[in-house]
Amino acid sequence: MTSPAMTAPLPGSINKPIHLMGAVELAASVANGTLSPVHIAEAFLERIAKYDGDIGCWAYLDPIAIRAEAKDLADEAAAGNLRGPLHGVPVGLKDIFDVKGMPTRANSKTTDDVPAITDSAVARRLREAGALIFGKTTTVEFAGKGDPAATRNPWNLEHTPGGSSTGSGAAVGARMVPVAIGTQTAGSNLRPASYNGVSGYKATFGRIPGTGCIALSWGMDHPGLIAYSIEDCALVLSALAGRDETDHNSLDEPAPPPTVSPVEAPRIGIVRDFFFEKSEPEMVAAIEQLAKDYEANGATVVEVELPSLFAAHAAAHKIILNPEANIVHTKRYERRKDDFSAKHLSSFEAFSLVPATYYLQAQRIRRGLRDQLLPIFESVDVLLMPIAPGGAPKGLDTTGDASLLTPWSFVGFPAAAISAGVSDAGMPMGAQIVGAPLEDHKVLSVAAWAEQINGLLPPPPNYP
Amino acid sequence: MTSPAMTAPLPGSINKPIHLMGAVELAASVANGTLSPVHIAEAFLERIAKYDGDIGCWAYLDPIAIRAEAKDLADEAAAGNLRGPLHGVPVGLKDIFDVKGMPTRANSKTTDDVPAITDSAVARRLREAGALIFGKTTTVEFAGKGDPAATRNPWNLEHTPGGSSTGSGAAVGARMVPVAIGTQTAGSNLRPASYNGVSGYKATFGRIPGTGCIALSWGMDHPGLIAYSIEDCALVLSALAGRDETDHNSLDEPAPPPTVSPVEAPRIGIVRDFFFEKSEPEMVAAIEQLAKDYEANGATVVEVELPSLFAAHAAAHKIILNPEANIVHTKRYERRKDDFSAKHLSSFEAFSLVPATYYLQAQRIRRGLRDQLLPIFESVDVLLMPIAPGGAPKGLDTTGDASLLTPWSFVGFPAAAISAGVSDAGMPMGAQIVGAPLEDHKVLSVAAWAEQINGLLPPPPNYP
Repeated sequence: MTSPAMTAPLPGSINKPIHLMGAVELAASVANGTLSPVHIAEAFLERIAKYDGDIGCWAYLDPIAIRAEAKDLADEAAAGNLRGPLHGVPVGLKDIFDVKGMPTRANSKTTDDVPAITDSAVARRLREAGALIFGKTTTVEFAGKGDPAATRNPWNLEHTPGGSSTGSGAAVGARMVPVAIGTQTAGSNLRPASYNGVSGYKATFGRIPGTGCIALSWGMDHPGLIAYSIEDCALVLSALAGRDETDHNSLDEPAPPPTVSPVEAPRIGIVRDFFFEKSEPEMVAAIEQLAKDYEANGATVVEVELPSLFAAHAAAHKIILNPEANIVHTKRYERRKDDFSAKHLSSFEAFSLVPATYYLQAQRIRRGLRDQLLPIFESVDVLLMPIAPGGAPKGLDTTGDASLLTPWSFVGFPAAAISAGVSDAGMPMGAQIVGAPLEDHKVLSVAAWAEQINGLLPPPPNYP
Repeated sequence: MTSPAMTAPLPGSINKPIHLMGAVELAASVANGTLSPVHIAEAFLERIAKYDGDIGCWAYLDPIAIRAEAKDLADEAAAGNLRGPLHGVPVGLKDIFDVKGMPTRANSKTTDDVPAITDSAVARRLREAGALIFGKTTTVEFAGKGDPAATRNPWNLEHTPGGSSTGSGAAVGARMVPVAIGTQTAGSNLRPASYNGVSGYKATFGRIPGTGCIALSWGMDHPGLIAYSIEDCALVLSALAGRDETDHNSLDEPAPPPTVSPVEAPRIGIVRDFFFEKSEPEMVAAIEQLAKDYEANGATVVEVELPSLFAAHAAAHKIILNPEANIVHTKRYERRKDDFSAKHLSSFEAFSLVPATYYLQAQRIRRGLRDQLLPIFESVDVLLMPIAPGGAPKGLDTTGDASLLTPWSFVGFPAAAISAGVSDAGMPMGAQIVGAPLEDHKVLSVAAWAEQINGLLPPPPNYP
């Protein structure tokens, strides 16, 4: 994957290597002529050539096509024609989003290598914003509970990078791409962001359209973002958010602004109930320390109690998710059942007989919990809690614990993942910042404020 | 129920009796001082005292309270203070809508006579518009498929007035009230309007909020209007439409204007397929004649074919309706099962085990059919078809056939009921005018245009 261009030193390498520059910095550098999309592409392709043998986070990548597209973007930038706010920024997409010219495999034996003929809404908006689509990142089988991808965590190759947006988390974590798109129906976007030591964002349900993305549970699927920082997430969200007529769940709301706003004295609710009970002591200590640090920087931190219906969220989430996931694949089950993993079938096919009345009761619990949670945000701006019980666990058979992320996917509230330091085992830990529906700009602004207080994690020690 | 006021002749009785004046005429007469709400109330109370012994369409009516409210409205009108566009217009509500101070019985042994403490959204908006709420009209048990109300059709006491908005249809048909509110989940609003020889309107799903109305199938329930003419329906709709925050299905769309617009050369699609197959020959002939009459008055009439998914609508409608209806009553089933009719239980309770995957497939069919139907309205303004196979059938054990109305309740499209003449058996027949979602004003305008061509039916011969 080396190229003639690699023989000369790359611009940007004197002060800061290109691969450590996030979306905001890269887009600004292209816009002001400091960096060419060709140099950016080469820097990240070099990382991929060197490290993806270890990590294995790409399901599809075509360096020839990337270089051709980078050349076009470079020519346009040189002529002063920027396509949009992400001109020249490399982006990877979880392999359940259709990208024109690339296959959508979804880590399933039932799919094939025929390239998609149209872009998903996310891919189309990325292109329109000038992003350089690098390729497809690995996923758990159909973004569900089936076979994990054979991808490793760059912080420790024996640990999971999380899932189901496995490759998106590992690729950004190993600095093979500054931005990747994932999805979250339980905890599939913020968990891999956090497990790989980078930032993540799941917008309010319906804010980023799911058109052209294979569904898991269409009433709860959230396309999500993984990037080097929350400010990078804000820039990308501004390019992806907004109504798409072909997605019935897509909200008719304007996109949030591309930059975060200054925050003074945010009111933060810490949620110890449930989230601390499920967490390891070092995670609890890390979140308590963050709360103290935020208070020292002007925040008001109060404890928030969870409403009564919260206790039912996990069961109701499962009763909604599994029949919907089953429906998505009904035709494939009829024709290709042997090509699904046993794990996938035991999760989803077995749920085909859940009574509709149970499903409807679960939907009522969802609306009821949402209504119970909304008043909390009259007295606090955001909630603070762990992303997961701890850092990424050892082993590649699991992708970790989604239970602390599931509540906010269930009700569709916006949630950000920021760093909470590194565990004793040397794995990144994450904090979750959650807000009220449609208050994405507030959540991003408070998360960016918090992220500045404790700083971003460096790249993984072995992949600096 | 007679009163001292009854001894003097009532104003309005010289040229046109008050009870033959519709909502538009009554509201205008109150506004210009020609009629007092007291006189209006007395005229309709007199009809009720004379005829409701035959018909039996009121589930709750308190003449003392009506007279007190009429007095207040009269005083305000005399002082030039009109509450809104329906000031002084009597309205009845189907006995599943909460009206403050009146019990909500829903024709069920499981309910009691304790008055509701708050108004439903419809009742509240009626009051705000100045309407004089007369009382509650009879319904089939919980607006479903249980025991019919003991109400008779004023055109022939041996025939059903239709259902489940039984009393609303019969009360307006017998001129006991000029406007009544019903609901339609399959065919429960337009059928009783048509069976009793008056006009009806079911707005786009979500346009009139259902807050405070007992649900049958919350994803398909439509509050609806029954009145003397389509122009009367347009006036009432303008007062009832608009977002209510506590109804999750309520649309954030402004109300249509209170008056219909002039129509020239409407493009009308006649739907013979399915609707004619299910209809009696005299109904088919009546609709064909209407089409000719409309053409003679400048309309273009073309035949419209139904899309492929239409064939699945009835089965999918049932698979959505029955589990949702079951959920509404789950707690009542647990505690009071013996107080439900066998008919109700066999329809709804038995559906508690429909698999969620079937329910979700049915919802997919619904969205798919909607998408298939929308392009039809690029080449026609409205569709024309029968309301029911014929006039109201003989017998009080059934409420007639909803199958020609169900498709538009299933997809949530607006639909109007206008007269198609009288059957050989002397019962009113109805035509249905259907439009695209949110094109309520167009549907009302074309229906009012059509209604002028063929004229309104007179009151029932025995209740003139």
